[in-house]
Amino acid sequence: MGDRGVRFESIGHVEGAFGDHAVPEEIAATESRIVLAPHLAEGLTGIAAGQRVMVIFYFDRVEGYELLQHPRGDASRPKTGVFAIHTPFRPNPIGVTVVDVLAIEENVLRVRGLDALDGTPVLDLKRV
Amino acid sequence: MGDRGVRFESIGHVEGAFGDHAVPEEIAATESRIVLAPHLAEGLTGIAAGQRVMVIFYFDRVEGYELLQHPRGDASRPKTGVFAIHTPFRPNPIGVTVVDVLAIEENVLRVRGLDALDGTPVLDLKRV
Repeated sequence: MGDRGVRFESIGHVEGAFGDHAVPEEIAATESRIVLAPHLAEGLTGIAAGQRVMVIFYFDRVEGYELLQHPRGDASRPKTGVFAIHTPFRPNPIGVTVVDVLAIEENVLRVRGLDALDGTPVLDLKRV
Repeated sequence: MGDRGVRFESIGHVEGAFGDHAVPEEIAATESRIVLAPHLAEGLTGIAAGQRVMVIFYFDRVEGYELLQHPRGDASRPKTGVFAIHTPFRPNPIGVTVVDVLAIEENVLRVRGLDALDGTPVLDLKRV
């Protein structure tokens, strides 16, 4: 491979009640919003409340990673490979979560189950 | 949002028998290999044959998209939003597929079910 760089532009961002130190389970039980760039709103055509959508996002507040990590940072659990766990501290800090769609209003999706912090850049959505 | 750009480096690439014009179902039934950069091999620790892994990859041969598209390019089906379908022609051409792990040999995973062309850059792996 020559140039291994890949560049994306976020399609929108997460708006939620949580800041930097929330527990993922707490975030996931709560409603949040995915605010798309307005010019992309038409791309939501066909998605409706009650459906599920895969959200691909960028862990923008993460720096660095180790190839072997304790799952969930729990030192009582043996270290395992970064690709075997879902830690945000990974070579490319990409998160993937399937959420429940509660409502769609133009370029805004209200969802439940999104374990991403307020302001997180969103890279893609795919109905599942 | 200010700068919406996000940059990644591929962690490896797909090696398979298929070129540019294969049918996804045909690719998916076939074995292929994910060749990681050798320095990342330790990140596979804990992943074993028989498990499933989510592969996040970059559709590097895709250019352009429309917000409304016929599913699978089938003009007999009504156009729907790009985020409601899995077309590679999307604002950020990111693919996500769950594959079966057949074997791991150092930095190479042999897998089945990967609908990605030979040479496709891989961005992340997550055991599911």
